[in-house]
Amino acid sequence: MKLRLINPNSTDAMTQQIARSARAVAHPGSSISALTLSGTPVSIEGYHDEAVCVPPLLEAIRAGEAEGMDAHVIACFDDVGLAAAREVAGGPVLGLCQASVQVAMMISKRFSVVTSLDRSVPIIEDLVEDYGAGRACRRVRAVDLPVLAFEADAALSRARLKEEVTRARDQDKVDAVVLGCAGMSDFCRALEESLQIRVIDGVQAAVKLAEALVGGGFRTAKTGAYAYPRLKSADMAPARVSESG
Amino acid sequence: MKLRLINPNSTDAMTQQIARSARAVAHPGSSISALTLSGTPVSIEGYHDEAVCVPPLLEAIRAGEAEGMDAHVIACFDDVGLAAAREVAGGPVLGLCQASVQVAMMISKRFSVVTSLDRSVPIIEDLVEDYGAGRACRRVRAVDLPVLAFEADAALSRARLKEEVTRARDQDKVDAVVLGCAGMSDFCRALEESLQIRVIDGVQAAVKLAEALVGGGFRTAKTGAYAYPRLKSADMAPARVSESG
Amino acid sequence: MKLRLINPNSTDAMTQQIARSARAVAHPGSSISALTLSGTPVSIEGYHDEAVCVPPLLEAIRAGEAEGMDAHVIACFDDVGLAAAREVAGGPVLGLCQASVQVAMMISKRFSVVTSLDRSVPIIEDLVEDYGAGRACRRVRAVDLPVLAFEADAALSRARLKEEVTRARDQDKVDAVVLGCAGMSDFCRALEESLQIRVIDGVQAAVKLAEALVGGGFRTAKTGAYAYPRLKSADMAPARVSESG
Amino acid sequence: MKLRLINPNSTDAMTQQIARSARAVAHPGSSISALTLSGTPVSIEGYHDEAVCVPPLLEAIRAGEAEGMDAHVIACFDDVGLAAAREVAGGPVLGLCQASVQVAMMISKRFSVVTSLDRSVPIIEDLVEDYGAGRACRRVRAVDLPVLAFEADAALSRARLKEEVTRARDQDKVDAVVLGCAGMSDFCRALEESLQIRVIDGVQAAVKLAEALVGGGFRTAKTGAYAYPRLKSADMAPARVSESG
Amino acid sequence: MKLRLINPNSTDAMTQQIARSARAVAHPGSSISALTLSGTPVSIEGYHDEAVCVPPLLEAIRAGEAEGMDAHVIACFDDVGLAAAREVAGGPVLGLCQASVQVAMMISKRFSVVTSLDRSVPIIEDLVEDYGAGRACRRVRAVDLPVLAFEADAALSRARLKEEVTRARDQDKVDAVVLGCAGMSDFCRALEESLQIRVIDGVQAAVKLAEALVGGGFRTAKTGAYAYPRLKSADMAPARVSESG
Amino acid sequence: MKLRLINPNSTDAMTQQIARSARAVAHPGSSISALTLSGTPVSIEGYHDEAVCVPPLLEAIRAGEAEGMDAHVIACFDDVGLAAAREVAGGPVLGLCQASVQVAMMISKRFSVVTSLDRSVPIIEDLVEDYGAGRACRRVRAVDLPVLAFEADAALSRARLKEEVTRARDQDKVDAVVLGCAGMSDFCRALEESLQIRVIDGVQAAVKLAEALVGGGFRTAKTGAYAYPRLKSADMAPARVSESG
Repeated sequence: MKLRLINPNSTDAMTQQIARSARAVAHPGSSISALTLSGTPVSIEGYHDEAVCVPPLLEAIRAGEAEGMDAHVIACFDDVGLAAAREVAGGPVLGLCQASVQVAMMISKRFSVVTSLDRSVPIIEDLVEDYGAGRACRRVRAVDLPVLAFEADAALSRARLKEEVTRARDQDKVDAVVLGCAGMSDFCRALEESLQIRVIDGVQAAVKLAEALVGGGFRTAKTGAYAYPRLKSADMAPARVSESG
Repeated sequence: MKLRLINPNSTDAMTQQIARSARAVAHPGSSISALTLSGTPVSIEGYHDEAVCVPPLLEAIRAGEAEGMDAHVIACFDDVGLAAAREVAGGPVLGLCQASVQVAMMISKRFSVVTSLDRSVPIIEDLVEDYGAGRACRRVRAVDLPVLAFEADAALSRARLKEEVTRARDQDKVDAVVLGCAGMSDFCRALEESLQIRVIDGVQAAVKLAEALVGGGFRTAKTGAYAYPRLKSADMAPARVSESG
Repeated sequence: MKLRLINPNSTDAMTQQIARSARAVAHPGSSISALTLSGTPVSIEGYHDEAVCVPPLLEAIRAGEAEGMDAHVIACFDDVGLAAAREVAGGPVLGLCQASVQVAMMISKRFSVVTSLDRSVPIIEDLVEDYGAGRACRRVRAVDLPVLAFEADAALSRARLKEEVTRARDQDKVDAVVLGCAGMSDFCRALEESLQIRVIDGVQAAVKLAEALVGGGFRTAKTGAYAYPRLKSADMAPARVSESG
Repeated sequence: MKLRLINPNSTDAMTQQIARSARAVAHPGSSISALTLSGTPVSIEGYHDEAVCVPPLLEAIRAGEAEGMDAHVIACFDDVGLAAAREVAGGPVLGLCQASVQVAMMISKRFSVVTSLDRSVPIIEDLVEDYGAGRACRRVRAVDLPVLAFEADAALSRARLKEEVTRARDQDKVDAVVLGCAGMSDFCRALEESLQIRVIDGVQAAVKLAEALVGGGFRTAKTGAYAYPRLKSADMAPARVSESG
Repeated sequence: MKLRLINPNSTDAMTQQIARSARAVAHPGSSISALTLSGTPVSIEGYHDEAVCVPPLLEAIRAGEAEGMDAHVIACFDDVGLAAAREVAGGPVLGLCQASVQVAMMISKRFSVVTSLDRSVPIIEDLVEDYGAGRACRRVRAVDLPVLAFEADAALSRARLKEEVTRARDQDKVDAVVLGCAGMSDFCRALEESLQIRVIDGVQAAVKLAEALVGGGFRTAKTGAYAYPRLKSADMAPARVSESG
Repeated sequence: MKLRLINPNSTDAMTQQIARSARAVAHPGSSISALTLSGTPVSIEGYHDEAVCVPPLLEAIRAGEAEGMDAHVIACFDDVGLAAAREVAGGPVLGLCQASVQVAMMISKRFSVVTSLDRSVPIIEDLVEDYGAGRACRRVRAVDLPVLAFEADAALSRARLKEEVTRARDQDKVDAVVLGCAGMSDFCRALEESLQIRVIDGVQAAVKLAEALVGGGFRTAKTGAYAYPRLKSADMAPARVSESG
């Protein structure tokens, strides 16, 4: 099975962390490759950052399928371009948020999410609600550190994460915590062990669900909203104002 | 990986079908065993039938964990006793309904469920809502045949299933259909091929998700509502009326 | 009118408290009997405890109807086996949680529930949501005492209850509090008087609604999901593993 | 127990029907009186009709409490002024829609409502949703006859009602039907018998729940949104335009 | 364009404030008139107060349309009688709560409401939910001052408002705050400037949306639930008890 | 007031229609300009088509603000990139779907949407739900014609639209219909007149709400999820695979 993870931001160190996390749980028979998009923001922190990543992401997925990939993981917790990606792909495409929400709903009764910046909280709340976990998810919390802080200052971010996961456990009274940023993967096991609560890394959730879908022959439906894009001509000139009417 | 499927009803032919379906998709490295409960109804058709299966089911899961099972699948679409099973188990426990709803939400945008009897429709509607698929699931339909008809009269049930899946596709305008009864597994591939729409068998969905959870180290949370049952004494005498007050 | 309350756990002292609470509000023309199940856990604290009570509970309800009972109350706040009980019964069957939620919605605008253990909180949250009180119920709180503590240490549990009902009143700003455990009935009136807020005992709510349903001729529907269980053969041998396929 | 039913419209024949329906199920110890408001529309068919009934309704409830009434029923299916009525009353106040929705949720798993005019359908849908029965109620249907037709042409309205209740039973696959207009009470039993499905009359549901609340000591909460109206001065001159600013 | 604001309470000073707020944002081509109802409570604080305003309000709207008004604004945050007003009107009718909720959903991602008394909190929560902002609105808060305090003690109410809007900003982490009482209009700009967060005055939201609806030719639908009231006779005698049956 | 409409697809004829529709309702004091993006698909029919429009759309909005635009309308019913656009803009940004849903909720009680292709139905259903109109919107229907058919074959598309709006009126029993595609604007008035039901054109709804927001000083909140994008470096090299770990 060939599985590709795509890091929509352009920070290679995050891609390496994502790949580490993926390989730690991937089935020995799975071949994992991890791609860093380029020309995209160095981190995804809001709607704009998401939006500019999607066109190259879709290209990368088409290229991946052409190369024979069986499935793709979009390795960002905001599930950037997930629906569009499913539209262009024949094989399964997974997002970290949906995957970890699904895992959380199978192994726990109530969970919280801990993400990076406050501004990402409503984005994730909306995803969690759309994925049907509005009741199971008690709260989306933020450590209020930018995404790259997890690379740049591991000690600080480990401390803040531990603090916030502890709050989730004790104040929200949840039995699982989902790490709401791909850049937190490296901290997952240590948090789980020290705080004695299930901690879910979205990268690992997505990799395992991707393997499950491929193994079960569950390919993306191609007859409804995820049907391949309709073919039409489109010229490629840059945007310009054309006063009309 | 050792995975056990438990058929909560006492019909061994259904267990064999379930095992066939499971083995068709299980990873070669997974060891699949399938157990038929006894002393339970020959089919599960309503709340009473569900309820009387749960105590032996919980015993079977405890026994399975003692034997070294890594995960269990409750092989009935009503997800009989799922929460209680997660409480008594350390490893993951999957139900067919939750598993197929999750697969459907990853590969399609709108789906319908086709089950056996009309009386099971509200039961499944409630599960689908609880699993967060109230928006994604357009309709729960029934062929209005009892569960055992799928064993007893394959031609009739195949024809009725095909009719109802076609209605789901054309009237509900869904891009996937979930088969809402473990006894329908044998019909899954033929329906998918002849009707050109994704058809999801809950047994296969649950087997693959169980493998995913085990492979990812996602064990059941033991600190909240799924914590092991509290120990207490209980005498085992039969029920009796004791006028009080 | 003959009304039977069934305490699904095997603690007779709780049954006596339940009967006291019921008789304090029952219509003089109602004949109240209270039954303790035996062979069940001494208290119901989680999904497993619920599950193992249901088969004897269903037997007790069938026996009750054979004896001429007009209605049954399942005297546990988790509404153990309520749907299955309605399936086997011709007369009305009430659960404490649904009954008190309905009373709360008729006499107050916002309410909270105070239950025993933290682990019961998600169970009750789910019931409250299913009964349609997701908006009316602000919060499900726990005193974090086991059920039997209410029998064993009345002073402690009275103090903890008072504390938590006070928090519900002042922090949740509710105008009613539902006591979320049958073992709290004895404390109801004193709490209501000392804290100047409506406090609802589920036993009393269920008894009065049961009388109402019987008096109005509102018997359980027998044509849909609550139709009597379908008849089928079932051998009664103990559970065993049968390897299949 | 003294229970007063208030018919918010000014049609005395409807009040008589309401009183008949109420007395058919009231406890022998209950004293039932029925009041027709005057100065109000002859039937309640829309938001305007509702609104103009509320001030005299509130006066009537205050007068009723002064006369020693233990509880009030607002005998209109739109639950006209229910929240305001609970604010002015110390005793319980019931509305037909909320009462029948609650009864339906205790004795059936899925129900539909059949009301008079199409224009009332969204009004009742909103009430049903607010009362928490959005999932349990499959559909609100209308016979498309004005309210007074039930008095004026009993044969026609009986035929149309039978037709629509049959559709609810067979198309919506419900196990109970709620009659969504106080003017349909006389037809309730015959429909139930001929169509073999539970049919719920809101008047009878409300009367029995009112007796239950009074008998259980469940009085309206007076500390939150249903606290008595704040006292303030108000002159009683007619409305006039006063240009300001 | 002729736009009329109706203050449902009888306090003229509030009408003047409302008119000031309206005129500050109205289009120069709009003619704004503001009307104080008389015979109504001096402030609207609960369901009773709302209810008694509605009949004169409906009369005032009919009179307004007869005078040639293009649209009406009901200048009370509880949206008193809004549905009934739309029924009697041909032109658009706006309520402060719906209008500010809509504006908030267009310019922010999460907002809170700050109202006067605690007892109004559930009223506004229900409106916000009905208007579809259940997810966007984090919390409805109250300064716990009566409505007229905003006239009587501007310094105190300014201080309390500032305190509560600050809490909304910092604790609820919202990016907009809606002022939940028409009597708070005068404080809006200063709060916005000093607290650096969007603060929305419902009067201004409603005036601008009213202009938009009129300008776009979006008149109230007259074929469904907002169709004109059905004509029927009604005698105008005062309410009386008529024992029936 | 300067308002710019951006047609995210590259079909200039649609932009001209959009501009016609906008100018028909714009305030005389508003200056309307309409821009066609280039390099984008000729029509937006699915998630992929949406996604590839967003980066040039964001550029166009930034350019628009630099040119002094007071507000922007994204003239596509899928509200392509709406959240991202609000993030990059200081002034208000409107989408056709949100705007027409809001207008529909102010002038009608129940509405349906009629869009172009079946594949767009779930996309619009999700938007409608997110905008809080899940209860008010009865159904999203499709005429099953591609977007450009409205330009290419006006007679056919007029006929199909009339047919589907009629079904919405008669089967869904709604009092308003929203046209779910910017390419349908030219048909709006004729449908409204011939079918005697409110028909809402999203372009006109958005233009009027944009004027309202600008006129009321309601600018986009810049402190939460719509704060300006965080500044960070990003190299602009094309996407490439970089095997990591």
